[in-house]
Amino acid sequence: MRTTLDVTDVKLKFVHVGEIETVPAHAVASLDGQSRWFEATLPLHEARMRYAWQLNFADDHLNFTSLGLHHSRRGFRNWFQYLTGCQPPTWAWESFFYQIFPDRFRNGDPTNDVQTGEYLYQGRPVEHVAWDTPIDRRGDIHAHYGGDLNGVTQALPYLRDLGITGLWLTPVFVSPSNHRYDITDYRRIDPHLGGQAAWDELVAHADQGGIRIVLDGVFNHMGNENALFQAALAQGDAPERQLFTWRDEPGKPPYHSFFDVPTLPKIDYGNEFAVQEFLSGEESVVRHWLRRGAAGWRLDVAHMIGVSGTDQENLTLHRALKSAARQERPDAYVFGERFYDPELALDGQGEDGSMNYHGFGLPVMQWLSGQSIFGEPSRLAGEELVDILWDAYHALPPQVALSMFNLLESHDIGRAHQRLGESRRKFLAAFTLLCAYPGVPCTYYGSEVGVTQSRAGTMPWCREPMPWDESRWDRGLLEQVKRLIRVRLDTPVLHSGALRFIHAEADAIAFLREITDTQGRPQRAVALASRRTDTHPVTLHLPGGPWRDALTGEAIPGGTVTLDACGGRLLLHP
Amino acid sequence: MRTTLDVTDVKLKFVHVGEIETVPAHAVASLDGQSRWFEATLPLHEARMRYAWQLNFADDHLNFTSLGLHHSRRGFRNWFQYLTGCQPPTWAWESFFYQIFPDRFRNGDPTNDVQTGEYLYQGRPVEHVAWDTPIDRRGDIHAHYGGDLNGVTQALPYLRDLGITGLWLTPVFVSPSNHRYDITDYRRIDPHLGGQAAWDELVAHADQGGIRIVLDGVFNHMGNENALFQAALAQGDAPERQLFTWRDEPGKPPYHSFFDVPTLPKIDYGNEFAVQEFLSGEESVVRHWLRRGAAGWRLDVAHMIGVSGTDQENLTLHRALKSAARQERPDAYVFGERFYDPELALDGQGEDGSMNYHGFGLPVMQWLSGQSIFGEPSRLAGEELVDILWDAYHALPPQVALSMFNLLESHDIGRAHQRLGESRRKFLAAFTLLCAYPGVPCTYYGSEVGVTQSRAGTMPWCREPMPWDESRWDRGLLEQVKRLIRVRLDTPVLHSGALRFIHAEADAIAFLREITDTQGRPQRAVALASRRTDTHPVTLHLPGGPWRDALTGEAIPGGTVTLDACGGRLLLHP
Repeated sequence: MRTTLDVTDVKLKFVHVGEIETVPAHAVASLDGQSRWFEATLPLHEARMRYAWQLNFADDHLNFTSLGLHHSRRGFRNWFQYLTGCQPPTWAWESFFYQIFPDRFRNGDPTNDVQTGEYLYQGRPVEHVAWDTPIDRRGDIHAHYGGDLNGVTQALPYLRDLGITGLWLTPVFVSPSNHRYDITDYRRIDPHLGGQAAWDELVAHADQGGIRIVLDGVFNHMGNENALFQAALAQGDAPERQLFTWRDEPGKPPYHSFFDVPTLPKIDYGNEFAVQEFLSGEESVVRHWLRRGAAGWRLDVAHMIGVSGTDQENLTLHRALKSAARQERPDAYVFGERFYDPELALDGQGEDGSMNYHGFGLPVMQWLSGQSIFGEPSRLAGEELVDILWDAYHALPPQVALSMFNLLESHDIGRAHQRLGESRRKFLAAFTLLCAYPGVPCTYYGSEVGVTQSRAGTMPWCREPMPWDESRWDRGLLEQVKRLIRVRLDTPVLHSGALRFIHAEADAIAFLREITDTQGRPQRAVALASRRTDTHPVTLHLPGGPWRDALTGEAIPGGTVTLDACGGRLLLHP
Repeated sequence: MRTTLDVTDVKLKFVHVGEIETVPAHAVASLDGQSRWFEATLPLHEARMRYAWQLNFADDHLNFTSLGLHHSRRGFRNWFQYLTGCQPPTWAWESFFYQIFPDRFRNGDPTNDVQTGEYLYQGRPVEHVAWDTPIDRRGDIHAHYGGDLNGVTQALPYLRDLGITGLWLTPVFVSPSNHRYDITDYRRIDPHLGGQAAWDELVAHADQGGIRIVLDGVFNHMGNENALFQAALAQGDAPERQLFTWRDEPGKPPYHSFFDVPTLPKIDYGNEFAVQEFLSGEESVVRHWLRRGAAGWRLDVAHMIGVSGTDQENLTLHRALKSAARQERPDAYVFGERFYDPELALDGQGEDGSMNYHGFGLPVMQWLSGQSIFGEPSRLAGEELVDILWDAYHALPPQVALSMFNLLESHDIGRAHQRLGESRRKFLAAFTLLCAYPGVPCTYYGSEVGVTQSRAGTMPWCREPMPWDESRWDRGLLEQVKRLIRVRLDTPVLHSGALRFIHAEADAIAFLREITDTQGRPQRAVALASRRTDTHPVTLHLPGGPWRDALTGEAIPGGTVTLDACGGRLLLHP
């Protein structure tokens, strides 16, 4: 612990079997010649240790926790956390992800396209739609544009050039809808996406190009055309009936299902067969695809998975899932879709992290856009934004915070360009925050060239096909995005540095990332963003120095400086 | 929900199977003629529901949670809580407790006193000490002053006159030490305290006087003279060996024990016999004394109880304990000693509440005294005090917050008078907060007449015998204390009202308790306290009015008023 305060002595406090124990800290040689340094040994009694420092003075004593310095002993939730016995997927921290919705990214093989009338789903025929047709039907799941894995393979040079090193593919298994979250066969790549051959080819080429692929695991519910569900329906005494939770409630399907949608029967993990089949069995779906080249799993509605139609045993099931994944691939990256506060789920034993809607994407975009994802107007100011970001960040063990999957947009919520009023500067401000924030950054296909949507709202409007006619691209934006991604990839402090907010005003925020090596030398980065679309001078107090602008190379002194925050700034030291 | 803001509509949000669901709120007739009122129905899917309000405006929307109004969706921890399916012991909310350390309160029968040399404990003879002998030995557990249950019975008129309606007795079972936390026989009242006859007589008289008695349950460890432990030691194959966790660690007893003290072997609840014997069996110790007149249990080191020498399964064991207690006595009051942040333990299924060191006693006394319980100097200011009190309060379900056992001092920490520099005004400020704060107030024997200690520190200095020579009493103090206790007993809003802090400055804080009845009529109380020992004018903004001073009857208008906060003020409306 480094301090410039006039302490008489320092202690380390930690929680052990519900008691607070204390050990003295010892002064050690100053590493930076400016501060006093103290060191103490934290005994690791449990996988997740809570600790705090106590600084004593002649006439006062202070606690030092994630809330900063304070005079009173605060709740354990605010103490620092040290998590041991967990292997975070550090490759993901160093990666830049790109989310692909396969039907809409690229049509690599028109011969495998879904044909109009090829089959019925929910009693309606599916439809083949020409690539450039704008989306115009609310709630559409029947329109297939023809994108496939062959197309993803063809686009690998484009993605590599962009700087992408990780792909998250929304579901690719046999399914009747265009979104494929209604899986008929978890062990077969959809033939309309090119089938197993296209998957194998994609994995081989991606591997060569240093790109890892995370698949989308829909383990809360299956599609009603799945053979397991059909068998359960066919016979009252079928053993498959135990995979579902049957009920008799007026106006609802006779089984628990995702939001009571009859085509999405919920899996009951009170049944051991379900646990074995999907999660942890020797031949489970989780293991199956990790053996066949997947680098990890994004878990659809991770918070819902449970027993008897509920989310009970959710954490136990996630622990079993991750344990199986890690046995199969020691660096598998497993993260859940958790739209809401994931604090209690993310203890390091289950998912590595979760999609960071709660602690990054939603509040950042609400602040920048002036409205919620539902279009409700909002006067959220930078000061309050910083409060919620910090609260969500410090609630997590450090390795978990660094494993959060950060995103500004997805196939489920409105596109960033539309939400930001098509302001390139606002988008770049958002993208700067994405590149610099703790966690694994992911960008949604097409936003790098300006893909937007025809009207406000969430899905399906956010699922327009990727234009491959480059004349429709915003090339200036693409170049800026590439440069930001390059900075993220090349800057270790952005992969694993700690976080501290250093500025907040209504229209601008700034934070510091920092690592100190064993010689006391700091590596630092500062991200600054404004929600204004015109020049916005912001005065920051930069620690140390000298600094440089990561994009322009401009030299910037330490101390008090005034910078134009419009469009976002990223500063590095050294 | 009542608001004066210009909302367009209001929604109620709640958490259901990990999702946020929303229902519209409907405007209802204004109950107070001043505000708009909204009503919504909260479906109770789970015992503990989290909910928040959303207020929509033409150009903004706000969330309303325990953090107040804010623009962003905060973590679930800050949402309001509605707890159902729990029966809080509301009699305790209406009670005023008095803690008695039996050896030091009153000697009702000198014939049962421990005699010097009567037995050895830890190889040293016990000692009979004359009542007025000041405590002078650090760590003493051999000096017996002769207090007993007969004395408590004799003092019942005194306690009734003081206003006491609940007693917490530290352990009363057969034990060798003067504190009796090393129990030899959990089913026998110590003969030196008068035995079963004295207990039965005390219960009978207390019942007549409307006083309930809570016993001290030492279920984490027993005394080494206990027959169960002696049997375990005597034979390597004794079944009793399974009650303890044996180990082989250099420098430690060969079994887990309380802080490695060899005379206090820790009970291993991994063993079903232990669970049955002490907690939940048909003839468990918990049930035994509830059947014999105890009104509840205070659980010693509640956070330590667990299996295999740890605190694992702590919550499960507490749930079993409370469930057994409730079967035996539906209004049993069960609260644990939890010196530290009890948030995760207090979900309404286990203890009703806990000793409120973390969220009341320690920070309040640190602020008033300018030092921690360990004597470390502290500049904790009122603004920060309010932060920690609020954080601890809103983390708990309302019924739990109202069931917390509030105290300023105990047999384990320094006496209030000594810590407050013998300032009667500071003590009354502290006592005012105790009387008005949500939870069950408890005062420590003797403080009402000014009992203090001969030197700074915790036990044993805080265990001086109660003086019964009234010439040694501070009668002025006693009268003030009595009047405050009377106000607490007679004021329903102090038993169950909600909490809101309305003022904080370095040297003063104020809070509001409030209930609104179904006609919209508020009952309110305000507590104001200063840590200064001389006149301290504080300006408050009092809602509604008129108000009156609870002690002097002085009329006080609503709105902005300036009051002398020195010594504490308690205001009531109506």
